[in-house]
Amino acid sequence: MNAKEYPVIAMHEDDNVAIVVTAGGLKAGDQVRKHRSASAVTLVNAVPQGHKVALVNIAAGQAVLRYNVSIGIAKQNIEAGSWVHERLLEMPAARNFDNLPMATAKVPMAEALSDFTFDGYRNADGSVGTRNILAVTTTVQCVAGVVDLAVQKIKQELLPLYPNVDDVVGIEHAYGCGVAIDAPDAIIPIRTLRNISLNPNFGNEVLVVSLGCEKLPPLRLLPPGSFPLMPSQSESDGPDTVCLQDEQHVGFMSMIQHIVESAKPHLQRLNARQRETVPVSELVVGVQCGGSDAFSGVTANPIVGYATDLLVRAGATVMFSENTEVRDAVAQLTHRAASTEVAQSIVRELSWYDQYLERGKADRSANTTPGNKAGGLSNIVEKAMGSIVKSGSMPIQHVLAPGEKLQANQKGLVFAATPASDFICGTLQLAAGMNLHVFTTGRGTPYGLQACPVVKVATRTELANRWHDLMDLNAGRVADGEISIEEGGWELFKLLIEVASGRQTWAEHWKLHNALVLFNPAPIT
Amino acid sequence: MNAKEYPVIAMHEDDNVAIVVTAGGLKAGDQVRKHRSASAVTLVNAVPQGHKVALVNIAAGQAVLRYNVSIGIAKQNIEAGSWVHERLLEMPAARNFDNLPMATAKVPMAEALSDFTFDGYRNADGSVGTRNILAVTTTVQCVAGVVDLAVQKIKQELLPLYPNVDDVVGIEHAYGCGVAIDAPDAIIPIRTLRNISLNPNFGNEVLVVSLGCEKLPPLRLLPPGSFPLMPSQSESDGPDTVCLQDEQHVGFMSMIQHIVESAKPHLQRLNARQRETVPVSELVVGVQCGGSDAFSGVTANPIVGYATDLLVRAGATVMFSENTEVRDAVAQLTHRAASTEVAQSIVRELSWYDQYLERGKADRSANTTPGNKAGGLSNIVEKAMGSIVKSGSMPIQHVLAPGEKLQANQKGLVFAATPASDFICGTLQLAAGMNLHVFTTGRGTPYGLQACPVVKVATRTELANRWHDLMDLNAGRVADGEISIEEGGWELFKLLIEVASGRQTWAEHWKLHNALVLFNPAPIT
Repeated sequence: MNAKEYPVIAMHEDDNVAIVVTAGGLKAGDQVRKHRSASAVTLVNAVPQGHKVALVNIAAGQAVLRYNVSIGIAKQNIEAGSWVHERLLEMPAARNFDNLPMATAKVPMAEALSDFTFDGYRNADGSVGTRNILAVTTTVQCVAGVVDLAVQKIKQELLPLYPNVDDVVGIEHAYGCGVAIDAPDAIIPIRTLRNISLNPNFGNEVLVVSLGCEKLPPLRLLPPGSFPLMPSQSESDGPDTVCLQDEQHVGFMSMIQHIVESAKPHLQRLNARQRETVPVSELVVGVQCGGSDAFSGVTANPIVGYATDLLVRAGATVMFSENTEVRDAVAQLTHRAASTEVAQSIVRELSWYDQYLERGKADRSANTTPGNKAGGLSNIVEKAMGSIVKSGSMPIQHVLAPGEKLQANQKGLVFAATPASDFICGTLQLAAGMNLHVFTTGRGTPYGLQACPVVKVATRTELANRWHDLMDLNAGRVADGEISIEEGGWELFKLLIEVASGRQTWAEHWKLHNALVLFNPAPIT
Repeated sequence: MNAKEYPVIAMHEDDNVAIVVTAGGLKAGDQVRKHRSASAVTLVNAVPQGHKVALVNIAAGQAVLRYNVSIGIAKQNIEAGSWVHERLLEMPAARNFDNLPMATAKVPMAEALSDFTFDGYRNADGSVGTRNILAVTTTVQCVAGVVDLAVQKIKQELLPLYPNVDDVVGIEHAYGCGVAIDAPDAIIPIRTLRNISLNPNFGNEVLVVSLGCEKLPPLRLLPPGSFPLMPSQSESDGPDTVCLQDEQHVGFMSMIQHIVESAKPHLQRLNARQRETVPVSELVVGVQCGGSDAFSGVTANPIVGYATDLLVRAGATVMFSENTEVRDAVAQLTHRAASTEVAQSIVRELSWYDQYLERGKADRSANTTPGNKAGGLSNIVEKAMGSIVKSGSMPIQHVLAPGEKLQANQKGLVFAATPASDFICGTLQLAAGMNLHVFTTGRGTPYGLQACPVVKVATRTELANRWHDLMDLNAGRVADGEISIEEGGWELFKLLIEVASGRQTWAEHWKLHNALVLFNPAPIT
């Protein structure tokens, strides 16, 4: 009887392992083949879906190669056909920052794509929103309970009167007081909060609720010149602010009523706007992955990478992030930097992050989760190689430190240096000016944000089927042989344009969203 | 014409400054007097309410004394009748930890108070709830959006069927993944979350929603033996868990429905309970202050301190906290420790916190806020002296590290070492087992928690009047000469018994609450 043969995916010709794609995994005796002209390998033990099988004998001390990168050194001899899991691998040390190739790639800019447009909300500062949302910024967590109730009231009583306004969102957070606000790293949460309130999806309307005695008062959060002026406001005025400790507030309902009243002129101006056709170059897309598995780097992230290239060719901005997931690819990034300055900025951010982790007695290996490992990712090196695929192949034009905002002229591919934590990364990308979010997931996560539509891409068909009303695109069809990476990339590119123009994502449909989380590396007090 | 004379408050006979209590402050030429038999001092400049006036000439280099403690060294000669503000003071260095008086006070236990009871919910583990709440614990922030929607549905559809259940609360947080979970300090957020799910107000019912691939899976959060078993559960089972990535969940609504169905048996058991009369010794009261002013240490905190003594005499547990606000009083605390071991634990926690701040290039002085200073508190030393007054005068029996839970036999006065940040302190006190919360405020903050009633005490009559439906007790009457500290202390003690028995606080009335915030000194990834 002939053993049955099953497909596997090898990422590079020189790889000595490949990924099992069959749902339910393979069993001992099943056969796999690297590519059509390679000879068949018979499995010596069972290999779960998404996990690696050795295509050749790998001797102890030899590198296990995936993406043509050493994802680990074999701790023992590994026979061809064996399951290659994390316990067989010694993780390589992190690449140090010496002698990196700095802006050596000189990637030629690919042919520009013109004629792609979407329907967005043009803001006074030149940015474009994909949604038309009123944000209520808070200076401190103390006011969050009051803002919560006020926002509920605005949604119930006012929002129906302003049908062009998509939502009202309280920008709540754990910062603003009880923190070491003069510590060197405090600049990160402060500028994050400032820049989020200026996100393009908030239409340049700034409404602040403050307590009155907090460490981060409105004028420190938003100093004159940092925010757009409203009609009748002068440069020296602070932002439009409701301060709860003000003497005018007698009783709780007077605070609620004041916030509700203050929202009206902002809602009126937002409501008067209409979507207009703008070039795709106005998109600021943040890409991220979470709940990753071995398919992330094979299906969803390559599709995102292809779409990233299309967006960049169309003049848009695409941010990739997640420090610990690019750390092992630092040489690839500095190589692809558009200039030596950009390469140096990449090194600056990643070495700052190394030190941040070290202070807490951790390193990049703290990134991987039990779910990653169950999904076939042996360690952070393998995860990283799959993660950076989202960044496509274009030159890296700019680097942002955590919480910084893109300038109007900063287009193209951007490395926004953020932690990999899903919610902190999303929050920092919002601060950077993101108006559209792409999130790939293998294990499955119901991620959503209130401030920005999130297009979720499943790495596997099984997940896409099971979570049919949570996943916006099924990249698993690549592993199924149904579509190519290129086809998937174009599909995602077109879906992004639709969502940017107003089409609801599943998360928006269910009003499913997670809280923002500020990155505060400074101490609390 | 005779100058008018106004009241001031000096905390100790040897103090060389006193606090102006008059609303609107005093002006140059007004007169004050330390006590009836002291000679009058004429103000040389205006002094705002809550601020300090020099009662004698203070030479440059001399200590400014309040609470008979040096709150700073005069930077220049200060004439009697001058406004003594923070710019005139050099803050003293923090007391080092050498040669502290260790358990030297041998405070005699005051006469026991018996016969005080309240009506609470007796739990299987022996603890007593003041509320009857279903908590939905989450292992990771990824599930928060889903849990939010499920909790809304449970509240709308189920809660009306279980009238004895007060509320349903999602224990949401930013932890669980994207964090360095094996870093040395990660134990703090993990045990905090574990212990919160076991808070007495949650009736020993544990329901967990997990994602499936997170770093903090249900069995790591709640290992066997750490949580009460439900009927039909065996020791080796994990907690009652809904895992969103489980294959049984097809489509979003199946997740929601599963959580809602899982809530039912818990709600049934909670609903079957009745309040019963229990001794006041079952109270576990957390005391805290926020938005402090110079009156905090004069009116509200002394009243709380008096009530603390009454509670301790009645056999209850009272926790005081806020590391940076007790740091300058370390010698007073170790002196009052019930044993050398307790004194050593105080030093261990405060020196750990010193190091934590130092790692982030901050120190205890990062605590004070612009509002504190505007309210008359010159620096952290003065703030601390006013803050520890909440701890009363009894011996300190136990010390808890952040996130630790009190054992059943740990009664009396407890130092629960936590940051002073209001929400982190409250969260850690909940983890410690708090079933009732007292919060004093001078500037005014609308603080509330979902898991536990919060009794808010205003330091000034003006605030209590203006925020008449947010403040539960007006301690400003002490400054007005209407009540004594003792009368206020008894009043608070009795109010606490009423609230513990079910009387609503203002925050509960308005459903006003803040989010929990975990203290995570370890890095995120």
